[in-house]
Amino acid sequence: MSEQLNDPLIIAGRSFQSRLLIGTGKYRDLEETRLAIEASGAEIVTVAVRRTNIGQNPDEPNLLDVISPDKYTILPNTAGCFNAEDAVRTCMLARELMDGHDLVKLEVLGDQKTLYPNVVQTIKAADILVRDGFKVMVYTSDDPIVAKELESLGCVSIMPLGSMIGSGLGILNPHNINVIMEDCKVPVLVDAGVGTASEAAVAMEMGCEAVLMNSAIAGARNPILMASAMRKAVEAGREAFLAGRMPRKKYASASSPMEGTIVGK
Amino acid sequence: MSEQLNDPLIIAGRSFQSRLLIGTGKYRDLEETRLAIEASGAEIVTVAVRRTNIGQNPDEPNLLDVISPDKYTILPNTAGCFNAEDAVRTCMLARELMDGHDLVKLEVLGDQKTLYPNVVQTIKAADILVRDGFKVMVYTSDDPIVAKELESLGCVSIMPLGSMIGSGLGILNPHNINVIMEDCKVPVLVDAGVGTASEAAVAMEMGCEAVLMNSAIAGARNPILMASAMRKAVEAGREAFLAGRMPRKKYASASSPMEGTIVGK
Amino acid sequence: MSEQLNDPLIIAGRSFQSRLLIGTGKYRDLEETRLAIEASGAEIVTVAVRRTNIGQNPDEPNLLDVISPDKYTILPNTAGCFNAEDAVRTCMLARELMDGHDLVKLEVLGDQKTLYPNVVQTIKAADILVRDGFKVMVYTSDDPIVAKELESLGCVSIMPLGSMIGSGLGILNPHNINVIMEDCKVPVLVDAGVGTASEAAVAMEMGCEAVLMNSAIAGARNPILMASAMRKAVEAGREAFLAGRMPRKKYASASSPMEGTIVGK
Amino acid sequence: MSEQLNDPLIIAGRSFQSRLLIGTGKYRDLEETRLAIEASGAEIVTVAVRRTNIGQNPDEPNLLDVISPDKYTILPNTAGCFNAEDAVRTCMLARELMDGHDLVKLEVLGDQKTLYPNVVQTIKAADILVRDGFKVMVYTSDDPIVAKELESLGCVSIMPLGSMIGSGLGILNPHNINVIMEDCKVPVLVDAGVGTASEAAVAMEMGCEAVLMNSAIAGARNPILMASAMRKAVEAGREAFLAGRMPRKKYASASSPMEGTIVGK
Repeated sequence: MSEQLNDPLIIAGRSFQSRLLIGTGKYRDLEETRLAIEASGAEIVTVAVRRTNIGQNPDEPNLLDVISPDKYTILPNTAGCFNAEDAVRTCMLARELMDGHDLVKLEVLGDQKTLYPNVVQTIKAADILVRDGFKVMVYTSDDPIVAKELESLGCVSIMPLGSMIGSGLGILNPHNINVIMEDCKVPVLVDAGVGTASEAAVAMEMGCEAVLMNSAIAGARNPILMASAMRKAVEAGREAFLAGRMPRKKYASASSPMEGTIVGK
Repeated sequence: MSEQLNDPLIIAGRSFQSRLLIGTGKYRDLEETRLAIEASGAEIVTVAVRRTNIGQNPDEPNLLDVISPDKYTILPNTAGCFNAEDAVRTCMLARELMDGHDLVKLEVLGDQKTLYPNVVQTIKAADILVRDGFKVMVYTSDDPIVAKELESLGCVSIMPLGSMIGSGLGILNPHNINVIMEDCKVPVLVDAGVGTASEAAVAMEMGCEAVLMNSAIAGARNPILMASAMRKAVEAGREAFLAGRMPRKKYASASSPMEGTIVGK
Repeated sequence: MSEQLNDPLIIAGRSFQSRLLIGTGKYRDLEETRLAIEASGAEIVTVAVRRTNIGQNPDEPNLLDVISPDKYTILPNTAGCFNAEDAVRTCMLARELMDGHDLVKLEVLGDQKTLYPNVVQTIKAADILVRDGFKVMVYTSDDPIVAKELESLGCVSIMPLGSMIGSGLGILNPHNINVIMEDCKVPVLVDAGVGTASEAAVAMEMGCEAVLMNSAIAGARNPILMASAMRKAVEAGREAFLAGRMPRKKYASASSPMEGTIVGK
Repeated sequence: MSEQLNDPLIIAGRSFQSRLLIGTGKYRDLEETRLAIEASGAEIVTVAVRRTNIGQNPDEPNLLDVISPDKYTILPNTAGCFNAEDAVRTCMLARELMDGHDLVKLEVLGDQKTLYPNVVQTIKAADILVRDGFKVMVYTSDDPIVAKELESLGCVSIMPLGSMIGSGLGILNPHNINVIMEDCKVPVLVDAGVGTASEAAVAMEMGCEAVLMNSAIAGARNPILMASAMRKAVEAGREAFLAGRMPRKKYASASSPMEGTIVGK
């Protein structure tokens, strides 16, 4: 159906059919990772450079042998970096290992406890990376002023959290994400927080361009079935957004719809 | 995927692959009705006997010529009935017009303004219909005591509302629906209230066996695309339910998950 | 401030300054009961006739010696009744023991597990009691059709639950309570479900005339301090309702307020 | 009751009985301002130095003649500042006009449209002001990493928003504010977003030390009555927090309470 719609996601000039981006962490083994990615239909797969061998250790198994860059757009990320310098260095390493690949996911976290973004360091790193020619998809909080600053620096996608990494609490503040989307000219993706299928659909119904997740799939009892659920949920949410939902009313015979809602649903 | 799962919905001894039941009201014309039903993947299609020609008027277009009983399980419903007598009479008319077809959707409404169920009259009608041999799928409020009474009378499916018919407000009280499901031995379906795809997924993730809707599809700007969205959302929600979602945590490093939530999400 | 406002609650022709009604169950002892009632400022105190000695056992301590009918309006209730007959009989006993006192709180519950109202039996009992001259304040579900029926039978106050008795889950479906209030000409009180002070304030801000509670006070770690909190919360909510809250906006510079909200908050 | 509790709010070593701080903007006239402040019971009153005459214009009416520093703790704020330099300069002006008064409320906003904080500039200004001897109460987003940074710089109170200034949308992300409070050793106040009494109570029940508001009172239809409502709501919420609310349960007979909730309510 998505194909029929001819409704591609466009990031940094490249076109994708799938609006579900997924991570590669926390799976039982590489085989489960592979099957989950397949079931998800994802075309963009993000890889934590500091935790995954993508060539740094030539004698060990290389993830890219399983998740082939010929088949998937690999998105190296800076998970595990807590300051701008480490994040920049990690992106440079990835570019070198991947023959000049310049599309990266920047994340600079605030602490080990919450894994919440450090927005000051994120802005700093984004500025350096963009100037150095990287195409930066940036993980950030739901702060609309920070989002605007990251966009103005030249990031190719703004990726606010729904809730904290690994929490599975869904989108805690849809209002802020709506405010971010109002003005943003590059794609806005929800990255982190989605815990189950309906929450992925909610993100898409709000008008987000895509959703990125890892724990919700890898942490499910049956990751491969959840990957399938997420694929369908993201497509469902996108189609519902495009189809234009019915107006909300107090009851069917109410003369006027209930416009506007507190949380932007 | 659903097929591979071998996870049929079973109602009154019959088995269905689709867990999305849809209505036939409010479409622009019969062609749009047909296309929306096809896009939804529904196998059970409900028809308001008092508003639709299923043979009462032999000289007019018959819905069953478009929505063939050979292809779909037709579920005659008593929409427009405000007391038990009318509802019973309507079911009898349907059975007669449809050669003994005995699976019906009972709804007895309280008033024109809210279209909220009249549970007293619903119980009365259910009792008469079951005794008369009907297989009764019953639309009701989210009152767990009424639901239990309807089950004990012999209804084959309990169908609490998410919110008022035609409101599109979603599932306003998931807690009550969870309480209904705790003890109910026949399938519990959410009927009415779903307004967009994510809300259908929520119903399925809660453990409902299926979802019935009409306005959410017919009232969308693009009903056929919304029908597709709903199909995927119901499948996504069912798969997520079966896959077992990740635990919710305050943050990733929290030692214990957040068990129990107020509204049963 | 309430006094200055000259904003009395009027039930069955009697006027009250306090809009907080409280129960007498679950306290540690009669002294704690007395202190909590005093701190709450309640003028109407409800008593479970089947669990409390109000004169049935002349040789045992009588609650009415501690909670004097000279000081408080005693509201006998039918807690523990699961059918209309028991409830009617209980009201008659109370009237006899209390010298013709005819203001009662009717509750007929569905089962021991949920303590959810049995609305069919509640309607039946209300009809009998009103015809017999009782002034019936009636505990019910949030079903607007049942509420309208109870009003039309002549009940002097409709008291929908916020959530199940003893749950402390707050008002799970404010939408239904708003619909009940739209048409109801007798006072609508939220009875059951309030768990903490803010939830009592929410009920009052919605426009409810009063709140009745027991577990939220008796089940707090410090019941007497919680009683004081509830007194202030009910007054705060009422004053906020009368003061007319500021419009909600997406942000301060938004040209139009966000009218209408899903849950009536 | 608060007095009896001996439960003072302590900020920068000073002790206050009231936990409601209020602003002076948007009232019809100085008389309404005065009456609202009185009705609120506030002891700390915040004043926008760039919009209010506190001595800059010796020939015009001076707010401090109406809101006397002998009676209230005046809290000069930097509303209207969009960068660190302006905010620092504004604080210095206030200190000069007020004879060395060093307790200030710092706010540096991101843009005129949203009035959301600019956290980068806020951190910069906080650092300068603390080093210069100011006692800085700082308005910020609900970002826990930024909050921790502001605390480590030496701010005397962290004041995250509930929602955007002037929006009246309440506390959109209680989860983040809970995370901020977990580790913070100086008082956490909710500043901005509260729209009605129950929302002020919610903030206090979460464990916030106080609430600061302006629009919710000044923008009510009856500001003076709303000020009274807010006074009671803040006291109610604080008392409920100290009293320890009853456990939430699915229903009264549930064997175990529902621990943990998504949004920290």
